[in-house]
Amino acid sequence: MLIKVVNPNTTAAMTAVIERAARDVAGPGTTVRAVTSRMGPASIESHYDEALSVPGVLAEISGADGYVIACFGDPGLDAARELAEGPVVGIAEAAMHAAAFLGRGFTVVTTLGRTVGRAWDLADRYGMARHCRRVRACEVPVLEVAVAEKAIAKECRSAAVQDGCDAIVLGCAGMADLAARLTAEIGLPVIDGVAAATLQVQSLITMGLRTGSRQEYAPPLPKPYTGPLAPFEIPA
Amino acid sequence: MLIKVVNPNTTAAMTAVIERAARDVAGPGTTVRAVTSRMGPASIESHYDEALSVPGVLAEISGADGYVIACFGDPGLDAARELAEGPVVGIAEAAMHAAAFLGRGFTVVTTLGRTVGRAWDLADRYGMARHCRRVRACEVPVLEVAVAEKAIAKECRSAAVQDGCDAIVLGCAGMADLAARLTAEIGLPVIDGVAAATLQVQSLITMGLRTGSRQEYAPPLPKPYTGPLAPFEIPA
Amino acid sequence: MLIKVVNPNTTAAMTAVIERAARDVAGPGTTVRAVTSRMGPASIESHYDEALSVPGVLAEISGADGYVIACFGDPGLDAARELAEGPVVGIAEAAMHAAAFLGRGFTVVTTLGRTVGRAWDLADRYGMARHCRRVRACEVPVLEVAVAEKAIAKECRSAAVQDGCDAIVLGCAGMADLAARLTAEIGLPVIDGVAAATLQVQSLITMGLRTGSRQEYAPPLPKPYTGPLAPFEIPA
Amino acid sequence: MLIKVVNPNTTAAMTAVIERAARDVAGPGTTVRAVTSRMGPASIESHYDEALSVPGVLAEISGADGYVIACFGDPGLDAARELAEGPVVGIAEAAMHAAAFLGRGFTVVTTLGRTVGRAWDLADRYGMARHCRRVRACEVPVLEVAVAEKAIAKECRSAAVQDGCDAIVLGCAGMADLAARLTAEIGLPVIDGVAAATLQVQSLITMGLRTGSRQEYAPPLPKPYTGPLAPFEIPA
Amino acid sequence: MLIKVVNPNTTAAMTAVIERAARDVAGPGTTVRAVTSRMGPASIESHYDEALSVPGVLAEISGADGYVIACFGDPGLDAARELAEGPVVGIAEAAMHAAAFLGRGFTVVTTLGRTVGRAWDLADRYGMARHCRRVRACEVPVLEVAVAEKAIAKECRSAAVQDGCDAIVLGCAGMADLAARLTAEIGLPVIDGVAAATLQVQSLITMGLRTGSRQEYAPPLPKPYTGPLAPFEIPA
Amino acid sequence: MLIKVVNPNTTAAMTAVIERAARDVAGPGTTVRAVTSRMGPASIESHYDEALSVPGVLAEISGADGYVIACFGDPGLDAARELAEGPVVGIAEAAMHAAAFLGRGFTVVTTLGRTVGRAWDLADRYGMARHCRRVRACEVPVLEVAVAEKAIAKECRSAAVQDGCDAIVLGCAGMADLAARLTAEIGLPVIDGVAAATLQVQSLITMGLRTGSRQEYAPPLPKPYTGPLAPFEIPA
Repeated sequence: MLIKVVNPNTTAAMTAVIERAARDVAGPGTTVRAVTSRMGPASIESHYDEALSVPGVLAEISGADGYVIACFGDPGLDAARELAEGPVVGIAEAAMHAAAFLGRGFTVVTTLGRTVGRAWDLADRYGMARHCRRVRACEVPVLEVAVAEKAIAKECRSAAVQDGCDAIVLGCAGMADLAARLTAEIGLPVIDGVAAATLQVQSLITMGLRTGSRQEYAPPLPKPYTGPLAPFEIPA
Repeated sequence: MLIKVVNPNTTAAMTAVIERAARDVAGPGTTVRAVTSRMGPASIESHYDEALSVPGVLAEISGADGYVIACFGDPGLDAARELAEGPVVGIAEAAMHAAAFLGRGFTVVTTLGRTVGRAWDLADRYGMARHCRRVRACEVPVLEVAVAEKAIAKECRSAAVQDGCDAIVLGCAGMADLAARLTAEIGLPVIDGVAAATLQVQSLITMGLRTGSRQEYAPPLPKPYTGPLAPFEIPA
Repeated sequence: MLIKVVNPNTTAAMTAVIERAARDVAGPGTTVRAVTSRMGPASIESHYDEALSVPGVLAEISGADGYVIACFGDPGLDAARELAEGPVVGIAEAAMHAAAFLGRGFTVVTTLGRTVGRAWDLADRYGMARHCRRVRACEVPVLEVAVAEKAIAKECRSAAVQDGCDAIVLGCAGMADLAARLTAEIGLPVIDGVAAATLQVQSLITMGLRTGSRQEYAPPLPKPYTGPLAPFEIPA
Repeated sequence: MLIKVVNPNTTAAMTAVIERAARDVAGPGTTVRAVTSRMGPASIESHYDEALSVPGVLAEISGADGYVIACFGDPGLDAARELAEGPVVGIAEAAMHAAAFLGRGFTVVTTLGRTVGRAWDLADRYGMARHCRRVRACEVPVLEVAVAEKAIAKECRSAAVQDGCDAIVLGCAGMADLAARLTAEIGLPVIDGVAAATLQVQSLITMGLRTGSRQEYAPPLPKPYTGPLAPFEIPA
Repeated sequence: MLIKVVNPNTTAAMTAVIERAARDVAGPGTTVRAVTSRMGPASIESHYDEALSVPGVLAEISGADGYVIACFGDPGLDAARELAEGPVVGIAEAAMHAAAFLGRGFTVVTTLGRTVGRAWDLADRYGMARHCRRVRACEVPVLEVAVAEKAIAKECRSAAVQDGCDAIVLGCAGMADLAARLTAEIGLPVIDGVAAATLQVQSLITMGLRTGSRQEYAPPLPKPYTGPLAPFEIPA
Repeated sequence: MLIKVVNPNTTAAMTAVIERAARDVAGPGTTVRAVTSRMGPASIESHYDEALSVPGVLAEISGADGYVIACFGDPGLDAARELAEGPVVGIAEAAMHAAAFLGRGFTVVTTLGRTVGRAWDLADRYGMARHCRRVRACEVPVLEVAVAEKAIAKECRSAAVQDGCDAIVLGCAGMADLAARLTAEIGLPVIDGVAAATLQVQSLITMGLRTGSRQEYAPPLPKPYTGPLAPFEIPA
């Protein structure tokens, strides 16, 4: 099976990190293809960035058996589910659900403080707000995550000691390669959403399951689109 | 004061309906300017349409004292709040809050059944899920709402009789000019979100209030944007 | 239109503060009349005071197009809605709803610590509990609020720094004239419920909306009343 | 011990029913004294009636070891708790809590449809909303409950068949003497709040427990009261 | 009437404490019989212990008019309700409900920190999560509770000062004899679940009420049981 | 890796169905071993059966890299997590989480009506209550599920038409082999929890994750166990 892992920002270096994390866990019969969005922001650190990353995500939803949206805000998830033939999973969604199997509560460690509210939004939408003990920001910009392991580890250690959590969820796709080391170091399971979402999509495909498409998630209706977004028009 | 009312779809005829509804209620010192989105879908009837209407909304967020987003999905609301100097209010948000002042419960009457889930999402986000008795679809496409008063009225009458609601919220900007007639006919308050949101923005401006912008809603950080969305780049 | 703003306590000096706040924001076509309750407690600082302020509130519900109940406990709101021909809005209700348009979370700054539970009750009833970050008491009695700006400002500053809130709601009608100065000083929107409720009533009247009165909020049934409350009897 | 059971309406015939129900269950060492409110409405069938029954309830809160408020709206409960030396329990509160020990869900059978919203308010406040399957109205006025056993029984039977409930809560103090017969007839436990509240107060007194009075429920502060409510002034 | 109070652990010394607490509050017509489980763990301090205490509890559910399950995890409550002819009440359940009559919020003081999650589970199931301010552990093992009054009292004092609670719930049957002394010392009501549950069962029996048994709580269906649990088989 | 799939009832024929379902989806490097409980009930259709199935489940928690509890009540899940070295997943839990990735809402189709409450309990515990549209019973006993495909299919079709659900969750391990056929027939994804849980455990092991064991889920403390459960004693 082919799983496409979409990096919603335009930074290819982050796509490389994401691809490694996805390939590391995929089963022998699974091909992982990671793609970098071809339009929009270089990183996603605000509601504005996130909203404007969605067209780039949607442009990639075709040609695979299933899809991962590899940004912790899960941008465009509902729209992608309408479009896709196979299952679509976001990394925040997958990581929070995975955490729910590992104990009673988890803490999210994210990048900038201004994204904390969005993480709570998602926890709430996914039914995970009662499991979410706290959302912590390490105040590291998304594109500096790769060189900020120390600051992230520090926040994870504080979570383990202060939050009464049983697991830690990493709140940025760029942290994907830290999960194993941090799990070993902290003594609590530390979850990377890229791996979790890739395996979740693989599992859904294995079971022959995709989004229910008889109602809300039916394919979008054809209609005129204009301006720079005209290429998104779905012809009748 | 100047209030800009943004129609997130590209259909000018609907903007005309919206503009009338907003002007009808605005105070003597308020100038209402309704604008039609310059990119994206002709109507918003899916998550896909809604996601792709957001860039067009954000492109209009400048030059006024406050903003109304005149589509019942409130597309781009959080991002617009980061951008705008003044308050920003969505019509679903405004209509649901208005309904909360008029009794214990309201019913939403919307267009297509596939949008019902989105209406519940919003009710939940705004803290109004407990007030929302039911979301009813009259299965009229958005661009036919103007000529479907009979079907809409029928659904409102059913709501009044069956749902135990104290008010009815119209679930589409295109229904704006029906509220007064339906209020008279049904015997329950019927709320148009365009009027409600226009007055809400006017009230917030009158009180000197705008979105708190010290944290989550601070202006978006400057960074590179590429592809067809490059014009959205916020320069450093 | 005529809006009656009812001060549920019997202290005329507080009515004066309330009237100024309401008039400052009312539109050119709106007449604001503030009235002082003619029976009950001099200030409302307990469930006992609040319960016994209700008859005085209800005695004022007639003769206007809409009503504001200007005490942060919103005493008698449901009963007033049954009685009134026009809309009725409480100041806690209006302030909390207004805050919801200005960000994700607000903090309430109230008078005595013993009223904190009541503020949470209201946040919960209005669907605003998830938006309410904290209720802080500055431990200033209601009738000393006018001379306690310093203590109130201090609590607002603490809220801005510690609570992760996007807005602050003033938890007493007597604080009405502080909102503008505190907004400027704190750098976050600070909301006075008297202004918010006055504008909310004005907006509802402008839209031609009043409480839905077919069911729960139908006029009270006529029946005998006895004792000191006999004047409240509604004749058959 | 002495338990005072307060009938918040002014109808002595209903007090007699209430007194019988309370005495039937009280232990050998317990004296039950039922009193009729000396002011306010003859029956409580609206928010207006309920609000205006509260002064009459509060006037009776003295001279006993514990108190029952015997109207299904639990009028004045918080205020009475501030005043009383011993525990205070409302009949809606006691009945809903009792139901929670008898299965997963209960249905409330109340009088007029317009009181249904109030019953849900209370279920919510008491944490019982998830246990409350439905609130049914038999559309019998409060003062005709005594002669409407047939209509009430019919509604209870419907509840047993249609609502998936494990217990039924009678939603009016005037139904107190029906509980035993209906329990036998319906085959599900049918709960009278007067008995439940009397036993709850007796239990709390037996355990030496009363309302925690260090904070929110501390005695009301002394202050001037004026007008017809001046007798409620608590002297300094 | 005969009330059987079941100690789910196998430690007879704790049964003695429990029996005293139950007898101290039971009415003159009530016989209390406390029994020690005949199988399973000596104390209950983990999910494992609790799960394995359930058979011992169920083995005791016969021969009485009502039952108390005297361990703060309420082990086997649903199953016991299916089995029993009369009402069954757990001590966590009874204590939390009792606390709800004594103010707005309570704190639970329990034994080991690892049981805190279970206490929250129960608060949530019983609808009491909103009333529960905090669950505190004094890190005293269950079988040392009898000699740890000082540590428990310290935690109760901290709760009174820091948690904004109106009542304290003791989170272990072994603390039963401390409630009266702590109530006097702390100045807030301190609730022992053994007394609360005994009185609750006595009240339900007095009202002629038992678990509704037409659906979920009908008697278990007969079927083969094998292995060491074969004696639990219910013959056809 | 070795995954042990525990059938909590003692019926080997059902274990065979379960084993097939698990093996059908397991990856090439995964060995699935299904085991039948060696004590307790032949089928689980009540709280009593479920409680008494737990010892048999716990007796099987050793010797593998991860564990599936293959009964829709997820019996003994918390206790098994304390015991196990690797992850433990219940089939209700896995199926509900899987459904959450496939749309907004799911319906559960279960066996007997008396188990509906338990399914809601689990939906609530797992944060899935808002996603759960309805729990339907087809009133087929657990051990007749294998020959009742027609009745189950009928209930699934009704769900698809009436419940507004995007997915269907099969509420019994014995239905495991129906999922693929029903998915094809109904046109909505139909989820078997055995497959979902097996893949979930496999994914967690692949990511190197297991239950966080520093607090609530630490290994049970050693202590004496007596009677028929003495073999469960964990030695010091």
